[in-house]
Amino acid sequence: MRTTVLAADDIRQIVQRVGLHTLMDELIARLSTAFKHYDPEKTQIPTRAGFAYDLPHTGLIEWMPVMSLQDNVTIKVVGYHPTNPTQHNLPTIISTLSAYDVCTGHLIGLADGTFLTALRTGAASALASAVMASPNAKTIGLIGAGVQAVTQLHALSRLFDFGEVLVYDVNRQVSESFPERVAFLELDLRVMSAEELPQLVETVDILCTATS
Amino acid sequence: MRTTVLAADDIRQIVQRVGLHTLMDELIARLSTAFKHYDPEKTQIPTRAGFAYDLPHTGLIEWMPVMSLQDNVTIKVVGYHPTNPTQHNLPTIISTLSAYDVCTGHLIGLADGTFLTALRTGAASALASAVMASPNAKTIGLIGAGVQAVTQLHALSRLFDFGEVLVYDVNRQVSESFPERVAFLELDLRVMSAEELPQLVETVDILCTATS
Repeated sequence: MRTTVLAADDIRQIVQRVGLHTLMDELIARLSTAFKHYDPEKTQIPTRAGFAYDLPHTGLIEWMPVMSLQDNVTIKVVGYHPTNPTQHNLPTIISTLSAYDVCTGHLIGLADGTFLTALRTGAASALASAVMASPNAKTIGLIGAGVQAVTQLHALSRLFDFGEVLVYDVNRQVSESFPERVAFLELDLRVMSAEELPQLVETVDILCTATS
Repeated sequence: MRTTVLAADDIRQIVQRVGLHTLMDELIARLSTAFKHYDPEKTQIPTRAGFAYDLPHTGLIEWMPVMSLQDNVTIKVVGYHPTNPTQHNLPTIISTLSAYDVCTGHLIGLADGTFLTALRTGAASALASAVMASPNAKTIGLIGAGVQAVTQLHALSRLFDFGEVLVYDVNRQVSESFPERVAFLELDLRVMSAEELPQLVETVDILCTATS
């Protein structure tokens, strides 16, 4: 009985081998298929539950179980801790995935889900915009410029031909470091900080939230 | 950020070093303290939930989260698959434990919970009998003679001075192999198979169920 473990470093290597754009395109395609063909007779998804607390500081740990009938039970555990970036140099959202065989109950696999969760949220955001926004949208506005904003911009840029992105964050340092933090995506667009939120909201074609 | 992993082999080594009787005595003592001092202001335990299914064969996977306030969230996942012993040479009940830091959401530790679950269930059973049965009980009856019956007999034998154990299982092979399977415990008592359930029920001082 073996358990496959994919730590953060393994995920990084997979991303490097596959290529970030290829991975995102594949993820958007598969997520689209999953949404279209979702069948509650084949996939059971109970309401998520969790623990919320204020001490030692504000936090939330949730578990999100899903069963693919006659195949596996996967539980995604997600932590939301807004003090992570400043106090622990970690992302606000940290996630762990574990998959169990429905034949035996054995833990088949364990994976660091932090980057995968950010990718998937980006892909879901892009799919929603593809359904709801004009395909000719040229400017995108991001509210919240943390880790999540990076994969949302990436995913959206795979489906739209943007010329400009406007970014706003309650923490000005975060919005100002955003252009630098998305440089590795080599997107052909101008990245600008918005001074005020109303200015951003009025200007953009697509408004994308990446904050709570 | 590191995660401590305790696989089945690691648990086995820990048990060997500590000694099975010492480990069980310590477990019974700590479980007793935990029951006595349980405070819902310090420990949150939501109702367990899970997936039950009939295909590919009868099974159940449940998650049991618990939060020690300002410390950790631990999730025990337990699989119950009655065909495991015959089809996969595995125990019916398989378990995995994962612990998350409430400061960051990071997975601190992962442990094979199969043997630990059997030990804990045995210890809880012994504590219940200590509260409810006569301290002079001399015979114990076990209904169900699988893996769980072994740790229940072990735990009970640490608190009572039994001379005799009567065992019944719907599968006669399982009850007949029981004496051999508990020999390693070096208990000073007679282990006998009961032909019929009523006979067992009428004879014993303590009746202990180790079946669903």
